[in-house]
Amino acid sequence: MTKIIKVIHGPNLSRLGKREPEVYGNKTLADVNKCIESAFPEMTFEFFQSEYEGAIIEELFHVEDQKKALGVVLNAGALTHYSIALHDAIKAISLPVIEVHMSNVFAREAFRHHSTISSVCRGTISGFGEQSYHLGVEALLRLRENS
Amino acid sequence: MTKIIKVIHGPNLSRLGKREPEVYGNKTLADVNKCIESAFPEMTFEFFQSEYEGAIIEELFHVEDQKKALGVVLNAGALTHYSIALHDAIKAISLPVIEVHMSNVFAREAFRHHSTISSVCRGTISGFGEQSYHLGVEALLRLRENS
Amino acid sequence: MTKIIKVIHGPNLSRLGKREPEVYGNKTLADVNKCIESAFPEMTFEFFQSEYEGAIIEELFHVEDQKKALGVVLNAGALTHYSIALHDAIKAISLPVIEVHMSNVFAREAFRHHSTISSVCRGTISGFGEQSYHLGVEALLRLRENS
Amino acid sequence: MTKIIKVIHGPNLSRLGKREPEVYGNKTLADVNKCIESAFPEMTFEFFQSEYEGAIIEELFHVEDQKKALGVVLNAGALTHYSIALHDAIKAISLPVIEVHMSNVFAREAFRHHSTISSVCRGTISGFGEQSYHLGVEALLRLRENS
Amino acid sequence: MTKIIKVIHGPNLSRLGKREPEVYGNKTLADVNKCIESAFPEMTFEFFQSEYEGAIIEELFHVEDQKKALGVVLNAGALTHYSIALHDAIKAISLPVIEVHMSNVFAREAFRHHSTISSVCRGTISGFGEQSYHLGVEALLRLRENS
Amino acid sequence: MTKIIKVIHGPNLSRLGKREPEVYGNKTLADVNKCIESAFPEMTFEFFQSEYEGAIIEELFHVEDQKKALGVVLNAGALTHYSIALHDAIKAISLPVIEVHMSNVFAREAFRHHSTISSVCRGTISGFGEQSYHLGVEALLRLRENS
Amino acid sequence: MTKIIKVIHGPNLSRLGKREPEVYGNKTLADVNKCIESAFPEMTFEFFQSEYEGAIIEELFHVEDQKKALGVVLNAGALTHYSIALHDAIKAISLPVIEVHMSNVFAREAFRHHSTISSVCRGTISGFGEQSYHLGVEALLRLRENS
Amino acid sequence: MTKIIKVIHGPNLSRLGKREPEVYGNKTLADVNKCIESAFPEMTFEFFQSEYEGAIIEELFHVEDQKKALGVVLNAGALTHYSIALHDAIKAISLPVIEVHMSNVFAREAFRHHSTISSVCRGTISGFGEQSYHLGVEALLRLRENS
Amino acid sequence: MTKIIKVIHGPNLSRLGKREPEVYGNKTLADVNKCIESAFPEMTFEFFQSEYEGAIIEELFHVEDQKKALGVVLNAGALTHYSIALHDAIKAISLPVIEVHMSNVFAREAFRHHSTISSVCRGTISGFGEQSYHLGVEALLRLRENS
Amino acid sequence: MTKIIKVIHGPNLSRLGKREPEVYGNKTLADVNKCIESAFPEMTFEFFQSEYEGAIIEELFHVEDQKKALGVVLNAGALTHYSIALHDAIKAISLPVIEVHMSNVFAREAFRHHSTISSVCRGTISGFGEQSYHLGVEALLRLRENS
Amino acid sequence: MTKIIKVIHGPNLSRLGKREPEVYGNKTLADVNKCIESAFPEMTFEFFQSEYEGAIIEELFHVEDQKKALGVVLNAGALTHYSIALHDAIKAISLPVIEVHMSNVFAREAFRHHSTISSVCRGTISGFGEQSYHLGVEALLRLRENS
Amino acid sequence: MTKIIKVIHGPNLSRLGKREPEVYGNKTLADVNKCIESAFPEMTFEFFQSEYEGAIIEELFHVEDQKKALGVVLNAGALTHYSIALHDAIKAISLPVIEVHMSNVFAREAFRHHSTISSVCRGTISGFGEQSYHLGVEALLRLRENS
Repeated sequence: MTKIIKVIHGPNLSRLGKREPEVYGNKTLADVNKCIESAFPEMTFEFFQSEYEGAIIEELFHVEDQKKALGVVLNAGALTHYSIALHDAIKAISLPVIEVHMSNVFAREAFRHHSTISSVCRGTISGFGEQSYHLGVEALLRLRENS
Repeated sequence: MTKIIKVIHGPNLSRLGKREPEVYGNKTLADVNKCIESAFPEMTFEFFQSEYEGAIIEELFHVEDQKKALGVVLNAGALTHYSIALHDAIKAISLPVIEVHMSNVFAREAFRHHSTISSVCRGTISGFGEQSYHLGVEALLRLRENS
Repeated sequence: MTKIIKVIHGPNLSRLGKREPEVYGNKTLADVNKCIESAFPEMTFEFFQSEYEGAIIEELFHVEDQKKALGVVLNAGALTHYSIALHDAIKAISLPVIEVHMSNVFAREAFRHHSTISSVCRGTISGFGEQSYHLGVEALLRLRENS
Repeated sequence: MTKIIKVIHGPNLSRLGKREPEVYGNKTLADVNKCIESAFPEMTFEFFQSEYEGAIIEELFHVEDQKKALGVVLNAGALTHYSIALHDAIKAISLPVIEVHMSNVFAREAFRHHSTISSVCRGTISGFGEQSYHLGVEALLRLRENS
Repeated sequence: MTKIIKVIHGPNLSRLGKREPEVYGNKTLADVNKCIESAFPEMTFEFFQSEYEGAIIEELFHVEDQKKALGVVLNAGALTHYSIALHDAIKAISLPVIEVHMSNVFAREAFRHHSTISSVCRGTISGFGEQSYHLGVEALLRLRENS
Repeated sequence: MTKIIKVIHGPNLSRLGKREPEVYGNKTLADVNKCIESAFPEMTFEFFQSEYEGAIIEELFHVEDQKKALGVVLNAGALTHYSIALHDAIKAISLPVIEVHMSNVFAREAFRHHSTISSVCRGTISGFGEQSYHLGVEALLRLRENS
Repeated sequence: MTKIIKVIHGPNLSRLGKREPEVYGNKTLADVNKCIESAFPEMTFEFFQSEYEGAIIEELFHVEDQKKALGVVLNAGALTHYSIALHDAIKAISLPVIEVHMSNVFAREAFRHHSTISSVCRGTISGFGEQSYHLGVEALLRLRENS
Repeated sequence: MTKIIKVIHGPNLSRLGKREPEVYGNKTLADVNKCIESAFPEMTFEFFQSEYEGAIIEELFHVEDQKKALGVVLNAGALTHYSIALHDAIKAISLPVIEVHMSNVFAREAFRHHSTISSVCRGTISGFGEQSYHLGVEALLRLRENS
Repeated sequence: MTKIIKVIHGPNLSRLGKREPEVYGNKTLADVNKCIESAFPEMTFEFFQSEYEGAIIEELFHVEDQKKALGVVLNAGALTHYSIALHDAIKAISLPVIEVHMSNVFAREAFRHHSTISSVCRGTISGFGEQSYHLGVEALLRLRENS
Repeated sequence: MTKIIKVIHGPNLSRLGKREPEVYGNKTLADVNKCIESAFPEMTFEFFQSEYEGAIIEELFHVEDQKKALGVVLNAGALTHYSIALHDAIKAISLPVIEVHMSNVFAREAFRHHSTISSVCRGTISGFGEQSYHLGVEALLRLRENS
Repeated sequence: MTKIIKVIHGPNLSRLGKREPEVYGNKTLADVNKCIESAFPEMTFEFFQSEYEGAIIEELFHVEDQKKALGVVLNAGALTHYSIALHDAIKAISLPVIEVHMSNVFAREAFRHHSTISSVCRGTISGFGEQSYHLGVEALLRLRENS
Repeated sequence: MTKIIKVIHGPNLSRLGKREPEVYGNKTLADVNKCIESAFPEMTFEFFQSEYEGAIIEELFHVEDQKKALGVVLNAGALTHYSIALHDAIKAISLPVIEVHMSNVFAREAFRHHSTISSVCRGTISGFGEQSYHLGVEALLRLRENS
């Protein structure tokens, strides 16, 4: 049975641990990835981060074509709020994509209240710090059990 | 240690199982509640449903004053989109409130894209059917572990 | 054959005869109800009025569950313009609901030009004073004949 | 006593029976007119249809000047949504005009949610298929009885 | 001579003293009411609080029908910003209603900048903490002296 | 030397004297035309009225092609507010067009505050009753003297 | 096999060659029509121009009823931007309609950026001067080949 | 009989002849005033110019209180577009005020398309260069003759 | 102890008693000022009125620098709705400023529904005629007592 | 004579044939490119596809600098709706660019109704499936013949 | 060679050093002026400050007419955001005007994000405290060198 | 002491000297860079240009991590107006960033009037051609001196 889950981090998440620690905590992205792996020892994870919209779209197509992954947990960072190309890419693949955000984007600046990708994702989880990723993985696993 | 979790269902959720089963599934609200209890046998749950905005506000104050609950998992139904009074009530209590929706509200009609309560909740989970409640409970438990 | 028609009056309609008689006439709500009964002697009517959004929603579910009524003639009053919960409740039941207004809401203040419930009602009748209720009942009867 | 009722059909209603039968039914405009006549045998009807905004305005003035009609039942079609000239013409005559629509315009595309003529008509009836015309005639007759 | 003044508190004001003390002070609602009574010993006060829109409307009609009160001092809380039903209820009674707010609503979030009830109240007082109520009572007394 | 001035009246102006006399006075369109002729005995006038947008556009092209007129005084009635085709027609001819309105359109309903044709007319005169036409003729004459 | 193509020109296109030659070129409408015929000698063309919205709608119905034409190439002129009646007429017929514009409407005034008819046409071509018509005919022919 | 007409020029009109001569011509404000006097030898004119909103308001009150003037011809310059205080001042006096503009403000930048004062002036004349003042005086004289 | 209160009246308030008496009453500004003095004999008042935005700003700075006044009661008139400079001036001083309006600005034209100064004033009182000033003085006194 | 035409495909077009075949057909991008070549055997084509906004901009500059191409046929995909950088790049080169879309973007979601690049392209063709590319090539060839 | 530079300070800048020192620093306006003089000993400066829009416009005309100044460094304060009269005055003179702001207006309240004068100034400098003035003077000097 | 200043140029600036020379001048980007170096011989500069949003973000992080630069002078080109990712990246680093634009973006098209990055930059300089860069460097140096 497929056991791979793809976790994709968008622009600026490479700065985790250095950028606004009062919002995002002190862990680096590597720490966050490690915690996800420890929390779900029965699963295999592949991680990807990029500052490029184009690279994230390519990665989504790559995962789809490999046909090995169960689904994608995607924190699109700021692209969430204006990338229609990302919207189209998610719609173009059949893998389930779960949208996650560490902070509660709806409690921040007004320009973060709108998501261009929510309507093509399976669901959205936001506001639980790094636990948002864990809940995203849980969600993927439950979708599978219930399908 | 506190083990009670309050689950509050807003207007129209009493019709679960009868209303638009293709969107909400065939389970009744009682079934949904039972599943939540089975999934977390170590926790105690209290459930509340009402068609009245006022009653939900009173219940939130009641839970706060009892000082027994760990937090609230709230599916405010259509009140999500216009009840500023509910916004104020959530802000007025210290208990963490997790906003959940069974359907992906961002993929439905435009008037469901705005939430008046997101900015005062700890986080939002939407689009996973009844699993949205389970993920909401998980989120509450993790918040406690990490605080 | 089912002969019961439910007539529901929303907030402030309890003041009929006292409030703005130049707009709504001098008859009280009881007078209006009596006239409806006289105009359609072959039908049985049940009347309900409340200032509470929640109570009107509960009543709609109650009528649906009794399975005796032919349909509902609903004057939602000011709730017409902002109650998404009422929208959802009407959508959640299978009984036909006819939206009626005594005044021509489209010729009044701008905030009365939008109806959140029209899209889930079978049809709308507005501007004929208490005759709007009578035309609403006619409409219900014709729907039945033509179905 | 005046017994003539003018029924005016706006642009595109000449296509009834050919255009979107799932919305408007299979009857042609001639069929619809015949049904109106059968339903109210004690009244005389005059029918008019045009694709021209100008022609409908002229017809309204013609009916007013003849001084024989009891009132007008008007389905203005798409002109409903932008013709301020039609608004002015209705306001310029003293005959009562009843606005009717076969479909529930408020449940269709957003650009059909606004009517420029509602505020100068006596009332509005929409969503009952060809019965909208019949209810419009009923409304005119009751206005007379109650005046 | 009539000496009764009705003071109505809307949703969430039951939390006074517990909720955001830096905005609303440390006094409870009971304390606030007591202070109003002490400040105007020659008057009789009746106090009412509810989390329900419907209950506040019913209370307004109840006060009107008793014909004993001089007027109403109303802090509608969050209902101020969206309850058209409350707008209609105030318009439906002949008693003068004074709109009061403890905080300066115009200096808070954008969604609190609009009031649906100001246009049917006699006047508005906002920003003076609990003194807003006292000034509201003063305003009522002066209206009477000058009429 | 050219001495002909074209005066064009748009939709509903055929009702002058019958429609809202408190706004437009008691004179008919024929009376208004006669007064214009008396006020400027040295000029020749041609008058045109239509309820059709298309007919007014055709008339503008006809006047242009005859090459006899000095210019056009145009009261476009309600077309003023939405006819982009009229905008284009005025732009397409070289004759000067003066926009006139009898009432002060800026003091009436909001949907009359915007003119689609002002930007392609030489100037605008509004609010002087039938004198608006006379001032429009004066304006045309002065434009000629100063060119 | 059907070889007739209908080309319809809307308001103001009768002025081609006289109006803004720097935008529309020096050819008259007759010249433009002749060029279309020369470019596609194997096809038969019928041309129609009118300043009247109503006449264009009637023509569309006429072409549909004749059942001889392959499709319509329509330059609706300014009606493009506000005629919902034209939208409805195009939707009411089964013939394919290609929307063409000589100028690049998106590079002109803001009120020309919206088209009410694009959503019911098969496709849109704009900005190529009279070649827009030729490309529109090509598009029709290719649609046929590929269906 | 009163023969005085007040002509008020708003901010920047002191630069006439120096500022954008291709829009406003080469005459100075003194020249323009002199021409107005020559054109109406039977009238007495008083001229006033200021860069201050407050000074123009004071002047309007001063003219009203003197009770000698027939009316005011006002070119408010840029204040036209935002001065609500000027709106109130014009409304506060009984003298007729005619709004004039030398350029066609509706054909210039978007922020000049709205006038805050049109709704309280008797009429508006724009686009005829300095002749706009002359037509404004004509309009005042005709208002008097017709009242 | 400081006993001076500054009362500032903005543009057009010099016309009190002459302008729209049905809205503002028959008293002149001098009368209004005298009444304020009589109502609070223990206080000293200084009054200021100007049609100039700049003069009101200078006066605010003058009062601040004198260090004798308890606070300011300000009726900014029409400046309320657009003067950001006044907003900045109020923010720049430490004296408390109370915003007052005689009429209920929220029940008048839409462009009076927004206040640029409310967010920097201590509180707002509107709708009580000249009593608004008295309540403003009361509010100032109570602020002092409670600080 | 220059015979090279550059065809550029934007984000997600690499998925042609796999993504939403009911909208885009079953052909892959390679198939589409091959068909373009077959349809215009006398021309040479260069094809480019990228998911990166930056890469498309670089390619446009590259084509311009090579000075070999006749022009560009560009399907910018989702970048059409928000990339101002692409707008600037097209404006920065002298080669003609034709905007093409396979689907009728105006008949899809609202956020696809606006194009940031139309105003700097020579013309737009949308809604003809892969034939949109062919018509784009035709348009380029005709532009050359007519220049 | 001209060596005079005019520095104009708008409303509220007279309060520098007293108002919000955390935003604007502790220096008074006199201090700021002195520093400008010390920084550019080879230049002569003239300083002007006013709370009046009209006075600033008059000063701009005065400087232009003197023909001695090299240009103007203008901090228009709050007038920046609504004074169209100031826009017109800057456009009416030939001297270069540099817009400066001490704070970063784009990082403050939304109503400060728009400038009515930027489009007629040579350039804008904001966010460097009093150094914004120095940079403005530098900019003026460099403009001269490069012209 | 740190002497390195990073200058980053965004999309399309590689075309300097070729693109719209009347707006941007004839110098190439290399020329512009050389001039900056000559103007500040005591400083060391590093230059970077890219058409990719992602590359600019990476470069910002790279500069931050090297810990050698004094700050960044950034001309983000068109990304200024929509890249929230760039906003986040600037916020994520501690180096001061100065936003510069060669043209006066506020005097160009409306979609260039908004900057998503201004609020996280230290200050903004626009409208001085290549001197904008020099002023940006000056600003950085003064920030250091004053800190």
